[in-house]
Amino acid sequence: MTDLINLAWLAVATALVFFMQAGFALVEGGLVRAKNSVNVIMKVYLGTAFVGVMFWAVGYGLAFGSSAAGWIGTTGFFAQDLGSRESLDLLYQLMFAATAVTIVSGAVAERMRYGAYLAFGCLMGLGIYPVYAHWAWNPNGWLHQMGFVDLAGGGAIHAVGAWCALAGVLALGPRLGRFGRNGEVRAIPGHNLPMVALGGFILWLGWFGFNGGSVTSLDDGKLGGVLLNTHLSACAGAIGALAFMRLSARPVLMTSTVNGSLCGLASITAGAASMTPAFALLTGLVGGALCTWGAERLQRWRVDDAVDAVAVHGIGGVWGLFAVGLFHQAGLFDPQRIGVQLLGITASFLWAFPMAWLLFKAIDRFGGLRVPSLNEQRGLDDTEHHEVGYPEFQASPGQLRMGVERGE
Amino acid sequence: MTDLINLAWLAVATALVFFMQAGFALVEGGLVRAKNSVNVIMKVYLGTAFVGVMFWAVGYGLAFGSSAAGWIGTTGFFAQDLGSRESLDLLYQLMFAATAVTIVSGAVAERMRYGAYLAFGCLMGLGIYPVYAHWAWNPNGWLHQMGFVDLAGGGAIHAVGAWCALAGVLALGPRLGRFGRNGEVRAIPGHNLPMVALGGFILWLGWFGFNGGSVTSLDDGKLGGVLLNTHLSACAGAIGALAFMRLSARPVLMTSTVNGSLCGLASITAGAASMTPAFALLTGLVGGALCTWGAERLQRWRVDDAVDAVAVHGIGGVWGLFAVGLFHQAGLFDPQRIGVQLLGITASFLWAFPMAWLLFKAIDRFGGLRVPSLNEQRGLDDTEHHEVGYPEFQASPGQLRMGVERGE
Amino acid sequence: MTDLINLAWLAVATALVFFMQAGFALVEGGLVRAKNSVNVIMKVYLGTAFVGVMFWAVGYGLAFGSSAAGWIGTTGFFAQDLGSRESLDLLYQLMFAATAVTIVSGAVAERMRYGAYLAFGCLMGLGIYPVYAHWAWNPNGWLHQMGFVDLAGGGAIHAVGAWCALAGVLALGPRLGRFGRNGEVRAIPGHNLPMVALGGFILWLGWFGFNGGSVTSLDDGKLGGVLLNTHLSACAGAIGALAFMRLSARPVLMTSTVNGSLCGLASITAGAASMTPAFALLTGLVGGALCTWGAERLQRWRVDDAVDAVAVHGIGGVWGLFAVGLFHQAGLFDPQRIGVQLLGITASFLWAFPMAWLLFKAIDRFGGLRVPSLNEQRGLDDTEHHEVGYPEFQASPGQLRMGVERGE
Repeated sequence: MTDLINLAWLAVATALVFFMQAGFALVEGGLVRAKNSVNVIMKVYLGTAFVGVMFWAVGYGLAFGSSAAGWIGTTGFFAQDLGSRESLDLLYQLMFAATAVTIVSGAVAERMRYGAYLAFGCLMGLGIYPVYAHWAWNPNGWLHQMGFVDLAGGGAIHAVGAWCALAGVLALGPRLGRFGRNGEVRAIPGHNLPMVALGGFILWLGWFGFNGGSVTSLDDGKLGGVLLNTHLSACAGAIGALAFMRLSARPVLMTSTVNGSLCGLASITAGAASMTPAFALLTGLVGGALCTWGAERLQRWRVDDAVDAVAVHGIGGVWGLFAVGLFHQAGLFDPQRIGVQLLGITASFLWAFPMAWLLFKAIDRFGGLRVPSLNEQRGLDDTEHHEVGYPEFQASPGQLRMGVERGE
Repeated sequence: MTDLINLAWLAVATALVFFMQAGFALVEGGLVRAKNSVNVIMKVYLGTAFVGVMFWAVGYGLAFGSSAAGWIGTTGFFAQDLGSRESLDLLYQLMFAATAVTIVSGAVAERMRYGAYLAFGCLMGLGIYPVYAHWAWNPNGWLHQMGFVDLAGGGAIHAVGAWCALAGVLALGPRLGRFGRNGEVRAIPGHNLPMVALGGFILWLGWFGFNGGSVTSLDDGKLGGVLLNTHLSACAGAIGALAFMRLSARPVLMTSTVNGSLCGLASITAGAASMTPAFALLTGLVGGALCTWGAERLQRWRVDDAVDAVAVHGIGGVWGLFAVGLFHQAGLFDPQRIGVQLLGITASFLWAFPMAWLLFKAIDRFGGLRVPSLNEQRGLDDTEHHEVGYPEFQASPGQLRMGVERGE
Repeated sequence: MTDLINLAWLAVATALVFFMQAGFALVEGGLVRAKNSVNVIMKVYLGTAFVGVMFWAVGYGLAFGSSAAGWIGTTGFFAQDLGSRESLDLLYQLMFAATAVTIVSGAVAERMRYGAYLAFGCLMGLGIYPVYAHWAWNPNGWLHQMGFVDLAGGGAIHAVGAWCALAGVLALGPRLGRFGRNGEVRAIPGHNLPMVALGGFILWLGWFGFNGGSVTSLDDGKLGGVLLNTHLSACAGAIGALAFMRLSARPVLMTSTVNGSLCGLASITAGAASMTPAFALLTGLVGGALCTWGAERLQRWRVDDAVDAVAVHGIGGVWGLFAVGLFHQAGLFDPQRIGVQLLGITASFLWAFPMAWLLFKAIDRFGGLRVPSLNEQRGLDDTEHHEVGYPEFQASPGQLRMGVERGE
């Protein structure tokens, strides 16, 4: 009977995690310029579709099939005759894979060809992501065997997604006009901030399924605490971002606040089942502040992440994995646990970043990664899809000016 | 105890199906011109309200009351003293009825009076829809008795909704300027494509409740498979639309991609509990491609469906019903089953289309179906509601031009 | 086992109630001018974050801790070692507290400093709200002991929220240009009505968790009826608003229709578990009509509520509490019950309004409540956040005109 309850709850969680794709589409669509909004949303939409098929066909087996020495799965491809629970497990994991891939789409927005993105997304969804997921989550995965704690994918999804995003951003280079001759950062404001906020709310909502669905069984007494920790960390992430902006005399941006809350959520993804509420709150607070600081730091280094996905998911994922080591309720500051968590973080980088870099370089060689610069100026919606987001609204003259410094 | 679990899951599914109204409102609102966006969303909003009351009062009894010879229900009107489960069953079915009616609202957008739409919606919700639902779903319904397979309404909702929409579109005629003198199709682009994509995501989400809630009991081992099939078919629908556009050298439109995924969902509505994942994927793939092809075909025939609802729901519904006949896991290509499915498809058309046609004609005679052409030019928001969607955004000069060929 | 099912359902309800914040953000963001949209959404977003932390820290203990003579809770602050169910109970109540506070944000939009709002929100979330919630919901609360019926917070949330909103509106005064010299009302139309409708749908959706989650246990046979009543009342609220507008020859506004449905929902919040469907429908119908009438009345009295929150939640909450007295299925028109309900209504006003008024006055003295009038003209997004909602869309010339009478 408990199995049935778990089944029903997992179905809910699966739907919530799916809905996060809408959240990503809105956050990313709102943070880019109107001329590229269709293109980035299209990447999320089609990415969801392709990764869905790819992960069902291949990825799931690699991640959760019988383990070959803890490194990779070898069974369960093109699954057909599954029971109800097995089908749902696959679907839940499939939604996770799609989430990991979608993290990349925002970072590389406004200049990557959508075909190149889809090619990368498919390969990431059937290769890069499942392998690390196998290490972390397969009962026989080598990291799992060492006691690595990653409840819902602070490493497997957020860190891996962020490393892939970082590789993409570096392989592509910055958007035209993003940095001045002397290295000064030019703001490229998002075209629709209410959309960004709605996306933030939807992601926050989806995270209750993301973390809550990863509770093994409802009778283990974890679900309520996981959901409470998730919420407190998100709240604290927004507050951490706000505090950082106020204390450093920066304007209080909505975009940074939303990203702060999302980083709070990414930060608690690994440890939501292993911390007390007070430490969950602390984890989120630090995550939100770090994210705001990190996003600006990356800009100074001329790393052009169009939606600050690397800061949100990379810092959130890494800090969150580390925070479980520090704050695990079974023993604070346990060096053994901290060591394993650091190993998992390192492994995520060493596996995902070089693989993603190689993939992007290969796609660049064989099909082209970046749209021509005339198309980038004109906008990817028109040039890649023959469809624009808002054909009836007149662009303000200000849209044409570039190089407006953000008011800092 | 299983009953309680089923109750909780049905409550979730009911909420998800309700949320599809928001998805419809966004897809339809985004696909019309800004000047008609409030009007079409208003139709969805008020349609939900009126159909809710009508179906509770009359429709539910006609559909699920004691059957008179398999043709119509005769008890259960204005239900008062229901138990918890019965109340929820009614509410779930009420949400389905509202969905069927809403399918019509998009097709007839930008020229039908909202009062006329509400009159039609009420009559469809308390008459046309419940009768076919009785045939297909009532334990004593004549189609049900023959073994007709329609899990969640590929026939009862999507096909019936599409036939009503088709009748409305034909009764109304095309929008001003939609077709040129020589029959050439003039594109009328939607005013807000991010809204369309969000609507697509919300509909996709809601479909987990739509199909998943139709599983009789969670202990029958169906739920996981139904959800997996639903998702795979949606993914494949988007891919099918993409493939059709690429292979025929058309631009890859976001609008067609979203509609492809929705057609994939409509296609798997009848058979989600009766197919293996591979056939679900195939069903969605064919559905997505057919939908893109069909939407264009209808335009060539000068059938002006403002949001391609007939293609999405009609092709999806009909193809999906047929696909269960072909791919039922109890026996592929069983002629007996194919025959029954074809009979159900035929019955949906023969019942819904003429009835809807008569209703539209009657409304036209007694109250008027279409707004005056000056109002159509000015926009229905201003003329029917004295409220416009975006009073602060300046219209681009391009909005006034008509007859711009879609770049094909 | 029933406990586990209740747990899973409460987790769903909690997520749905959280999602209402997105609904509020959209309704409020869409109903204000574009230049203030970021600011009001930011208030909702940060309000959610701060109230989350405050209520966990202090508010929950005041509301649900051991009662001191029925007036206030004294235990359970900074909760750490909670079980799964206790954690979830806290989280569910936390979402309720955030809802109550958010009601205020819309009413005071377009002129209150966001810092002042956050200060008020924190103090309301840890003080005003929990005390009344204690009276109404704590098993030992004095109102509860008298048999006061308030299922999900028609009093504790909607009435209290509305009184606080009213105090804020009165303390602030109307927006610049809202009323003419001779008392004439000048319309300030919302900038994005599709956003408002989406917000309405999301709030409607969330209300299934709001009322449904307040059912004590799924085996008490209440859930289905509560959800059905909730939906019927929402439908009837929209219809009531429509009927009022039609019968009084006013234009049929979408904004009033959406608000009518929300008032229908607020009206059934107190009594969803205690009425038959027909009375739920009547309650919503009256609520929707009253709300439309009341919103206009407040304007005539020069009370400038930017989103009609006082009318929606105040009239909905008060009428709903009264309606339980009238229509309780255990006995219609029971004078004893009506008396207790009236006492609860009176207590909500006498507690919340003066406290809120004092708080607003104190904030005004020590930090300032209202932005400078030059900032109000320029817009709060730019002046308070250095970020605007739509940097690329050109404002229409009409945006600059003020004093356009709404077409009545």
